[in-house]
Amino acid sequence: MVGSGALVPASVLFLFSVALPCLGRSHNVTRPNIVIMLMDDMGWGDLGINGEPSRETPNIDLLAREGMSATAMYTAAPLCSPSRASLLTGRLSIRNGFYSDNAPGRNAYTPQDIVGGISKDEILLPELLAPQGYTSALVGKWHLGHRSPYLPLERGFNSWFGSPNCHFGPYNDKTTPNIPVFRDAKMVGRYYEQFGINRTTGESNMTKLYTQEAVKFIEQEAGKGPFFLYWAPDSTHAPTYASKDFLGTSRRDRYGDAVRELDAGVGAIVGALKKMGVAENTLVVFSSDNGAALVSKREGGSNGPFLCGKQTTFEGGMRTPGIFWWPGVIPAGTVTHQVWTQMDLFSTAIELAGGTIPEDRKIDGLPLARALLHPELEIARPVFFYRGDRLMAVRLGGYKLHLWTWSTPTYELQKGINYCPGAEVANLTTPTPTDHSARPILFNIEADPAERYPVPPHSQEYSKQVPKLLYAIIDHRRDLKKGVPQLNWCDPAVMHWAPPGCDALKTCLPVPPSKPTRCYWPH
Amino acid sequence: MVGSGALVPASVLFLFSVALPCLGRSHNVTRPNIVIMLMDDMGWGDLGINGEPSRETPNIDLLAREGMSATAMYTAAPLCSPSRASLLTGRLSIRNGFYSDNAPGRNAYTPQDIVGGISKDEILLPELLAPQGYTSALVGKWHLGHRSPYLPLERGFNSWFGSPNCHFGPYNDKTTPNIPVFRDAKMVGRYYEQFGINRTTGESNMTKLYTQEAVKFIEQEAGKGPFFLYWAPDSTHAPTYASKDFLGTSRRDRYGDAVRELDAGVGAIVGALKKMGVAENTLVVFSSDNGAALVSKREGGSNGPFLCGKQTTFEGGMRTPGIFWWPGVIPAGTVTHQVWTQMDLFSTAIELAGGTIPEDRKIDGLPLARALLHPELEIARPVFFYRGDRLMAVRLGGYKLHLWTWSTPTYELQKGINYCPGAEVANLTTPTPTDHSARPILFNIEADPAERYPVPPHSQEYSKQVPKLLYAIIDHRRDLKKGVPQLNWCDPAVMHWAPPGCDALKTCLPVPPSKPTRCYWPH
Repeated sequence: MVGSGALVPASVLFLFSVALPCLGRSHNVTRPNIVIMLMDDMGWGDLGINGEPSRETPNIDLLAREGMSATAMYTAAPLCSPSRASLLTGRLSIRNGFYSDNAPGRNAYTPQDIVGGISKDEILLPELLAPQGYTSALVGKWHLGHRSPYLPLERGFNSWFGSPNCHFGPYNDKTTPNIPVFRDAKMVGRYYEQFGINRTTGESNMTKLYTQEAVKFIEQEAGKGPFFLYWAPDSTHAPTYASKDFLGTSRRDRYGDAVRELDAGVGAIVGALKKMGVAENTLVVFSSDNGAALVSKREGGSNGPFLCGKQTTFEGGMRTPGIFWWPGVIPAGTVTHQVWTQMDLFSTAIELAGGTIPEDRKIDGLPLARALLHPELEIARPVFFYRGDRLMAVRLGGYKLHLWTWSTPTYELQKGINYCPGAEVANLTTPTPTDHSARPILFNIEADPAERYPVPPHSQEYSKQVPKLLYAIIDHRRDLKKGVPQLNWCDPAVMHWAPPGCDALKTCLPVPPSKPTRCYWPH
Repeated sequence: MVGSGALVPASVLFLFSVALPCLGRSHNVTRPNIVIMLMDDMGWGDLGINGEPSRETPNIDLLAREGMSATAMYTAAPLCSPSRASLLTGRLSIRNGFYSDNAPGRNAYTPQDIVGGISKDEILLPELLAPQGYTSALVGKWHLGHRSPYLPLERGFNSWFGSPNCHFGPYNDKTTPNIPVFRDAKMVGRYYEQFGINRTTGESNMTKLYTQEAVKFIEQEAGKGPFFLYWAPDSTHAPTYASKDFLGTSRRDRYGDAVRELDAGVGAIVGALKKMGVAENTLVVFSSDNGAALVSKREGGSNGPFLCGKQTTFEGGMRTPGIFWWPGVIPAGTVTHQVWTQMDLFSTAIELAGGTIPEDRKIDGLPLARALLHPELEIARPVFFYRGDRLMAVRLGGYKLHLWTWSTPTYELQKGINYCPGAEVANLTTPTPTDHSARPILFNIEADPAERYPVPPHSQEYSKQVPKLLYAIIDHRRDLKKGVPQLNWCDPAVMHWAPPGCDALKTCLPVPPSKPTRCYWPH
């Protein structure tokens, strides 16, 4: 029966690893183009198909109706940088090093004063696609380190238009430089300067530019050879923005306007695939880097029925839209309840490209090629919910077990910051990191996706399920080789004073003296 | 622009009142059959199209894809009896008397010891459809009073198979009789006796019977003349149940099994309309009597992103699924954001039937015939959220204003009862009735459908919107003529000891002495 979690037998992995030949033979498709559309802070509940009442996403919804919707897709982390690093490495942050251990269980990312970036010891998806003949482009936000050797063109991408960090600002370029926008290896301007975002009206053309760039890349590459397009616009990350054509057109303030413009972008990109005749040889995936940032209030999105949002390991922090579209290959109008993670995209892309998934290291992603053809399959594989270096929870089958809980720290709550606004579940949305290892909190996450009704510890259900989940954790920890943490050090000297290309633009700013300190990660 | 509420001009009502002739002329449809499918405690978020992750409602979702989905449809009350009374009278409970004033702001309904029922002074929908040639059937739960002269066949229905009250039990037939099931004017058995519900396994054939009855009615009536079918199954009301074929087939325990069986019932009924060739002359409406009963925990449903559930005047208590299907007439695959109430079904049905909406009393429902053809219309009409005799909140356009708030009384919370599990919004989910009239709490209910972020009282938005909402309340109160409360008195003697028909079945039970007392409504 459904929802009855079981331990992952080796045969499950085998089931997936044999998928490619089957797919290749029956569909005569090799090395499809791969388009990953990764939204920024867009929540599971922001899509029309996932119940957002204003229904602002007709193009994205159409993608789901023509393809497959995965209702139980998870990010690898509850925030941007580690989530994106896991997507491109197929590995949990705890392995690939995209975390900090300055303090236990803290969410670290890559602000512009971060010293580190994605380790050179990691292999990124485009680096594995290149030998298979793929041309790879990043359009949008990077967030895996903004200095050499961490930049996209040094890590397998053939081209890049976008920004290395969040579009926070405007800054004064004196105490803090504005964030640059790059084309390939060099900056071509800065947010709020050459690439305007009007903080009063919310007007910006960035989504329009990111859409044009994506369409142009498809038009250039279609027919030449396989391509990988990683489209990562950022307009639903606060401060949200939209272009003039979309401002004021939604029922959800500027956030809804941004969603509507991104939806139109999805329509334009899919339209380009069709126009160029490559739709039936292209896998399109639509997802988001983490749950909606409820901390942004009406400038943030919706996690639908799920608990809390970005920064937390509740469902609202890590459950994310998952749409898979590949006309003629993926059965149209289907829904799968298989438990997937964004790390699976790494393995699936390599599998479809005919490449080799690295065997010298643990890869957390599963190759899904066969699963994409069989939405009815049930997979028993564990999903781990990390907050920094701390394993907070695990899902296996229909159950989720919380070992640790933390919502918003008291010192942030006092400042009006809240990752769980409106939500309060006793013993769960705890304002301090709380260890439940002695009696972990269990949810039937299919019957109770909102994490409202803990399974009573004295019930049969609890005693039947908890051992399976605990064993999955033991199994996980047994072979866990922690990566060297890359997000421990910050330094004002590494900020975007003088990015490559600033000299030609004559916009280099004086670099202050180096003063490395341990980064402070408050939550 | 959307969402900008405005006061209701008389012309809006006129716009609707002229709808029928337009519809009649352009579509050559007169007196369509009307099927209202009213679920019991099913939440807005229980439908696949509204985001329930398990996607248990393919037939209901198809109805929406072939018809229109109304995302902002409201019940007239946050619980069963008053909600159903308003649907059939087109009037708020405060007018039609289906409330109690034993204590202020209490939710009253019709348990089996209730003395009252729907007042004879009220005109019910089937009574107005009969002169237009309609044959009306109720299949399922009544809940407007279980004694003469309140029963369905005394109030315009031509036939009835179902029960007057909730299927609570099993009782012992000594201190408390089991609830009877009626066919037309006489009981034909009782729940837990002739009509079994296994409380251990959850097995019951009631939904199967209710579906068969509905299909049989359509097969009998199709082609004869117009009919009105009011299908009101009750399996998603706790204690939830399903037949053997559906038990254990969902991802959401017995609740999901019940949903799946109801969804199959919807498919069967629509199938019968098609088979009998009357689909294009039938308006089908799908809705529910109130929000999901979160108090029932995993035996209750989902209100999706909305706050709290049944018994409350938050969105989770009164926002309800609204699907309108009429092939060839209602534009397929459309969504409307018009603010509708179930009382509109009363006026719309009369309008379509060519009848006359009563003019000797205030009718709260609007005739929607034209609106059904124009999903893009924006309506500025107020919706009032009552809890018993107390006006708690009002919605107008994109805004909702709370004058009073109440979640779960402290004395019930202490017993483990909770109408807002997992939710806590400061100043809003108050455990005691709290008067905010001096500074009402305002939400932009389109940008913030979860009622999480109150509009700051010192903002321009607040000072711009609140006067409009307050004026709508003044306007409402100006012509408000309260009905005589019908739900004040309870008496053990009126319980189902000896319902009509018990003599033939030889199941009459001794009636205890009459001992009328004021009913106790705790919340």
